[in-house]
Amino acid sequence: MIKVGIVGGTGYTGVELLRLLARHPEVELLAITSRGEAGTPVADMFPSLRGAVSLKFSDPKDAPLAQCDVVFFATPNGIAMQQAQALLDAGVRVIDLAADFRIKDIAEWEKWYGMTHAAPALVAEAVYGLPEVNREKIRGARIIANPGCYPTATQLGLLPLVEAGCVDLAHLIADAKSGVSGAGRKAETHILFAEASDNFKAYGVPGHRHLPEIRQGLAQAAGVPVGLTFVPHLTPMIRGIHATLYARITREEDFQALFEKRYAGEPFVDVLPPKSHPDTRSVRAANTCRIAIHRPQGGDTLVVLSVIDNLVKGAAGQAVQNMNIMFGIDECSGLGLIPVLP
Amino acid sequence: MIKVGIVGGTGYTGVELLRLLARHPEVELLAITSRGEAGTPVADMFPSLRGAVSLKFSDPKDAPLAQCDVVFFATPNGIAMQQAQALLDAGVRVIDLAADFRIKDIAEWEKWYGMTHAAPALVAEAVYGLPEVNREKIRGARIIANPGCYPTATQLGLLPLVEAGCVDLAHLIADAKSGVSGAGRKAETHILFAEASDNFKAYGVPGHRHLPEIRQGLAQAAGVPVGLTFVPHLTPMIRGIHATLYARITREEDFQALFEKRYAGEPFVDVLPPKSHPDTRSVRAANTCRIAIHRPQGGDTLVVLSVIDNLVKGAAGQAVQNMNIMFGIDECSGLGLIPVLP
Amino acid sequence: MIKVGIVGGTGYTGVELLRLLARHPEVELLAITSRGEAGTPVADMFPSLRGAVSLKFSDPKDAPLAQCDVVFFATPNGIAMQQAQALLDAGVRVIDLAADFRIKDIAEWEKWYGMTHAAPALVAEAVYGLPEVNREKIRGARIIANPGCYPTATQLGLLPLVEAGCVDLAHLIADAKSGVSGAGRKAETHILFAEASDNFKAYGVPGHRHLPEIRQGLAQAAGVPVGLTFVPHLTPMIRGIHATLYARITREEDFQALFEKRYAGEPFVDVLPPKSHPDTRSVRAANTCRIAIHRPQGGDTLVVLSVIDNLVKGAAGQAVQNMNIMFGIDECSGLGLIPVLP
Amino acid sequence: MIKVGIVGGTGYTGVELLRLLARHPEVELLAITSRGEAGTPVADMFPSLRGAVSLKFSDPKDAPLAQCDVVFFATPNGIAMQQAQALLDAGVRVIDLAADFRIKDIAEWEKWYGMTHAAPALVAEAVYGLPEVNREKIRGARIIANPGCYPTATQLGLLPLVEAGCVDLAHLIADAKSGVSGAGRKAETHILFAEASDNFKAYGVPGHRHLPEIRQGLAQAAGVPVGLTFVPHLTPMIRGIHATLYARITREEDFQALFEKRYAGEPFVDVLPPKSHPDTRSVRAANTCRIAIHRPQGGDTLVVLSVIDNLVKGAAGQAVQNMNIMFGIDECSGLGLIPVLP
Repeated sequence: MIKVGIVGGTGYTGVELLRLLARHPEVELLAITSRGEAGTPVADMFPSLRGAVSLKFSDPKDAPLAQCDVVFFATPNGIAMQQAQALLDAGVRVIDLAADFRIKDIAEWEKWYGMTHAAPALVAEAVYGLPEVNREKIRGARIIANPGCYPTATQLGLLPLVEAGCVDLAHLIADAKSGVSGAGRKAETHILFAEASDNFKAYGVPGHRHLPEIRQGLAQAAGVPVGLTFVPHLTPMIRGIHATLYARITREEDFQALFEKRYAGEPFVDVLPPKSHPDTRSVRAANTCRIAIHRPQGGDTLVVLSVIDNLVKGAAGQAVQNMNIMFGIDECSGLGLIPVLP
Repeated sequence: MIKVGIVGGTGYTGVELLRLLARHPEVELLAITSRGEAGTPVADMFPSLRGAVSLKFSDPKDAPLAQCDVVFFATPNGIAMQQAQALLDAGVRVIDLAADFRIKDIAEWEKWYGMTHAAPALVAEAVYGLPEVNREKIRGARIIANPGCYPTATQLGLLPLVEAGCVDLAHLIADAKSGVSGAGRKAETHILFAEASDNFKAYGVPGHRHLPEIRQGLAQAAGVPVGLTFVPHLTPMIRGIHATLYARITREEDFQALFEKRYAGEPFVDVLPPKSHPDTRSVRAANTCRIAIHRPQGGDTLVVLSVIDNLVKGAAGQAVQNMNIMFGIDECSGLGLIPVLP
Repeated sequence: MIKVGIVGGTGYTGVELLRLLARHPEVELLAITSRGEAGTPVADMFPSLRGAVSLKFSDPKDAPLAQCDVVFFATPNGIAMQQAQALLDAGVRVIDLAADFRIKDIAEWEKWYGMTHAAPALVAEAVYGLPEVNREKIRGARIIANPGCYPTATQLGLLPLVEAGCVDLAHLIADAKSGVSGAGRKAETHILFAEASDNFKAYGVPGHRHLPEIRQGLAQAAGVPVGLTFVPHLTPMIRGIHATLYARITREEDFQALFEKRYAGEPFVDVLPPKSHPDTRSVRAANTCRIAIHRPQGGDTLVVLSVIDNLVKGAAGQAVQNMNIMFGIDECSGLGLIPVLP
Repeated sequence: MIKVGIVGGTGYTGVELLRLLARHPEVELLAITSRGEAGTPVADMFPSLRGAVSLKFSDPKDAPLAQCDVVFFATPNGIAMQQAQALLDAGVRVIDLAADFRIKDIAEWEKWYGMTHAAPALVAEAVYGLPEVNREKIRGARIIANPGCYPTATQLGLLPLVEAGCVDLAHLIADAKSGVSGAGRKAETHILFAEASDNFKAYGVPGHRHLPEIRQGLAQAAGVPVGLTFVPHLTPMIRGIHATLYARITREEDFQALFEKRYAGEPFVDVLPPKSHPDTRSVRAANTCRIAIHRPQGGDTLVVLSVIDNLVKGAAGQAVQNMNIMFGIDECSGLGLIPVLP
């Protein structure tokens, strides 16, 4: 059994980790921490876990994290970078669901995240946990930078094209729509039900923190820098990301075949038949990314549709997938949940 | 392995049965029928099942239903009563998720459902599949009348009081709220998104088909007829029933203890601590009923709050629970899913 | 023109007052205050008002409130009671949309609202602004306690029965459902979109602040104390209250006629034909209360359905209606908006 | 008073016309037709209109349409083209809210709409009712082709750029998101609440009927053909369209100034300050289009955000605006409604 700890369990990625790990056949939950809720049974805060999780939140300083095989950080940005080294020193592996280790360029990270990085050496060591790109590196990693939700949906939708070099890499467009849970479980006015319901808007058009993360991943795949216009939108649904991706064709290919071949054997990427329109609920509460490729009117612009559940393949599910790979067990273990529809 | 067939798989209870049965460790899905969709892969209609269910819909007359151990009817009212006898004759057990076998009084059934009953003898034989009441009878049953969604939430919330005889049985009130999936996957104007969203209304106040079903169950528990005012409401959410139940106290009891004792050992009924307010998402996509008991201002009116997912404990999950009991396997098999929150 | 000021304009009742008053043919908006947003154009915070409201928020101490004919308080509880006297002394009339002047029994108010009342004398003077009950008193009032949203829907639905004395006054039940805007524009976790959407729950069952307000109004109408069980619920919609009211008949009446007669001539109460089920959207964004009366199965329990928009007839609209009455202009002035459907 | 008739009043554009016209100070509603609902009071079908509209639906053959000054067609595609000529012959002006007269190229229209056009001559005569482009022609028109919802939002967002010729006209992209009311009030499964809620998807990517309409409008503005990739999406909200528009810069301009100048004096187009993100609710239930212009990271791709209410500026409101212009009255008459927020 893999002994697991979770730091920061009161947000949506934390409770989603619990939903997945509590039924994972090879996991033993050892600790979940919360400074503010120490002593409170987890199931008191999240009654959905009554009967499934008997742990109480523990204070970070008392929690037996050093006895864990792996610790997940489901914390705000800037926490894991302060605590990861001590855990690694104790022989504990680390999976950070926040952004602390995602951007290799420290100066770039500090610009977008507005703080000084506390552990640049770990950034260098950390493996970006997108299994469809880095599976082998993940296998041996001590520390994983779990990808962001938009970056997961966007990269999986663009990678086959970028790797093949058959589109204009200087002018990619990602028009992405997220459910409101992507904003986290924070008491902020703009994500109140009465503000976000029956409403739709773009945000962060001048610049969003996921932009450098996506650019980094695509540039690595391309071998050259890429140009990307990234426009995120807030959508009145709880879960789900729908990325609508636009790329100008520079070399003819059988694009459907290109995607099918790229993701053949990938357990969590599903390339749909031609002319499909994946809806976000087709992956609700599951670790799947579904992708469809279109070429409207046979023109020179490709349209790729890519959907994930932001809390699963976009966060907690992908983190568990990374854990499975790191510990050499079945990559799908604990992740067989069928999407909830309707 | 239990060989399973489903008749009528294109509605919400059908696809929910598939979600549960496809991951059930002791079930082999043999057939799912749909007259209109024969030949279509189930996963083409419901992409959420891609990779999980490889069956095609088959025409009812070609499907190997007679080779099944059990057949679920996820059909409109009036279908199972025409087909169940032949299956029983072939040694197949039957679980009807519609209302054909729920009401013992044939005349009453015919009044509320507006058709002549085709199989009164089977009504007499059928066991009402509320495990918390009829577990022993279900064990030996050939045919199960799976309870309605409102009746499940309402009966589980009132049974301890009615059995104990400590409230005014002539004036019970059930104010029940249902998500829109309770109306089924039917092309009808009033359940369109643009009609039902951001809106709330009562319906069927003069009389709803679930009224006689609830009254029958409560009367059986009480040993005498009961009076019930039942007001259902349409709520802008996909899944979930919240029943707010009112009963006048006629004999003092420790009501919290009464409920806890009644449901001790029940795997799918969770009596919450005093002063709790269960929300429907705490049981979303899971087979649990959560109940809280209140006595506002210490008055003589009890308020019981009872929540279920209408498609799980209110339909497909309860049907699987009944199957588990009928076949002598672990009652919880295949039903360990943790509610999806948020 | 009536010169109008608004204290506390950053909440939902404040912006709704602006929507109504900016198009009111006899109103001139003089000031709207907000300590936190002083200097910000109102339309910067609420872009829906661009082109319609050119005012800036002003600091309360600088605002020309004393030059107004009437000041609306759209503030949290406890503010108006501190500032009303000074305005009254300056000859300004006051309409408080919060609860400061609603409960005549000061001790009762202090118990429910958890603070010492700063202006008991004004409580005695204030007129409870339910025009259907107090129209004549409102006409001459200097200070109005604008009713709460639940109290408006509940009282309008029960008043004809309570005034007629034809139901059991000791055991009234109000099962009320509110849209999330009823909780205000406050940064609180439980009303986040990802918490409140696709979800339904009761709250405050042990006791809610609107209970004493409703009881006071009904007791006044009855001439005797009344017993009321009041259960509010949070519903995943933005606007709207649906009160489902239960009363035991003690004397036969033509109940439909009773309601029609009681509200004949009322411009903002619409008694629907028998067997109707009003939905909340039928009053969305309008100042109307629609009511239907049912007697299920001819039994002894009446069911009254009463719907309002919590921000209009339940708050800002009713406040404008009170203003119209106080200033002797057409009661419907500025309130002719047709509900928005769909 | 302008005497008005409406053909086809049971859909969302019909009831929205009624909401606007019933309070229009210069309109007298003479007739509203529905074959299926003839004899039914309009307010029985739409209780939101109780007290505001006393008309009954009349059978099309009995309705006094020829006595009207103007008749609105709120019908499915293919109806107005059969009936418009007779009305014109009787001296009645016609405003078609469907697509019958929008596409000048008859063959193109027949390809996209799948039927033979019944009145090609009227297509030639009809004026495309986008006031911001064709105000002068509308003034004298006998027959108006009221623009589609996506075409209105998209054209208003792109016109300044296309007219100025400062972007790559061969590769425009319109990523558009619509509320579900845009699909009409039709009993179809895919727009049920339980299907469309908490869900998001693209549709019609291979080709959507609004594509040729948008291309025609932009080509006319450009003076040359344009290339456009148009991807519509279904969004879980009732009303609203959000068009996110992408254009590659080919000539430097002060783009913010370009838009502000283009729409100076337009009563229903609001160019927001730089760095704004309009949300759809900022125009909910009102006839306004709000637009923001972005140039992310100072690159060569412009991003324009354009929002409208699909039922108002995208349908009924724009139709009333056209009527106002045709009859020489204040263009804003009856259209002063402030958006409903929250």
